[in-house]
Amino acid sequence: MNHRAGCIFCKIADGKAPSEIVYQDDTIVAFRDINPGAPVHVIIIPRIHISSLTEVTTKHRELMGHLIEVANEIAKAEGIAERGYRLIANCGQDGRQVVPHIHFHLLGGQQLPNKLD
Amino acid sequence: MNHRAGCIFCKIADGKAPSEIVYQDDTIVAFRDINPGAPVHVIIIPRIHISSLTEVTTKHRELMGHLIEVANEIAKAEGIAERGYRLIANCGQDGRQVVPHIHFHLLGGQQLPNKLD
Repeated sequence: MNHRAGCIFCKIADGKAPSEIVYQDDTIVAFRDINPGAPVHVIIIPRIHISSLTEVTTKHRELMGHLIEVANEIAKAEGIAERGYRLIANCGQDGRQVVPHIHFHLLGGQQLPNKLD
Repeated sequence: MNHRAGCIFCKIADGKAPSEIVYQDDTIVAFRDINPGAPVHVIIIPRIHISSLTEVTTKHRELMGHLIEVANEIAKAEGIAERGYRLIANCGQDGRQVVPHIHFHLLGGQQLPNKLD
C-alpha cells in the first residue's frame, strides 16, 4: 500500500491512529470528522496516499468513482440520503486543504447553509 | 442519450440552452455558473440525466471518476490548479441542490472562505 510517513490520514487508514471509522473496504476508508461542521460529518479518503485533487489522473478514475459511490452509501447508512447532503473536496491553498491526503467531506443531518463557497 | 424534458442542464448539454462551455467530451459537459461565487466557478455535469448523488450506483463509477478527473483538468486549464480550488456537490433539500441534474461546482481563483458548510 502506498502510504506516506507522517500522514495522519494514512495512519488512520492503517488503523495506527484513532478514529471512528464508519466505512472501509479495500480501497476506501471513511471516518467521522473530529471537529464536525454538521450533525453528520464524515471524511472519505482513498487508502493510497494521493496528496490532492491536482494529482488525480486517468489511473485514479475507478478509485474516484468508487469514492463518490461510497459517499452515497454512507449517506444512506447515516440516514441522510433522502433529506440530502453535501460533498466537499478542498484542494491546495486557495481551497484551504488542511491535510495533504485527498479527502471528501460528507456533510448532512441538517439544512446546510445556502453558501457554495 | 438519456435526457429529461424540461431539465435546463440536459438542454445545456444538448446545446439547446445558452451557456459558456469550458469543456466537453462524450460523457461530461462543463460550463460557467451564471451567478459565480468565485472568480472561477464552473459547473460540471454528466451528459446523461442523473437527478442527484443519491441515484449514483456502481454502474456510474467510471462516469463519476471521469468527472473528478475532468474537474482537475479544467482547474489546470483555468490556471487555478496550483493555487488550489474547491469541489462541491449539493444533494437534495438539506444540501440545497437547486437543479435536479447531478452537478459539481468547481470554485477557485481566490482564497476561498474557511467554511466547510
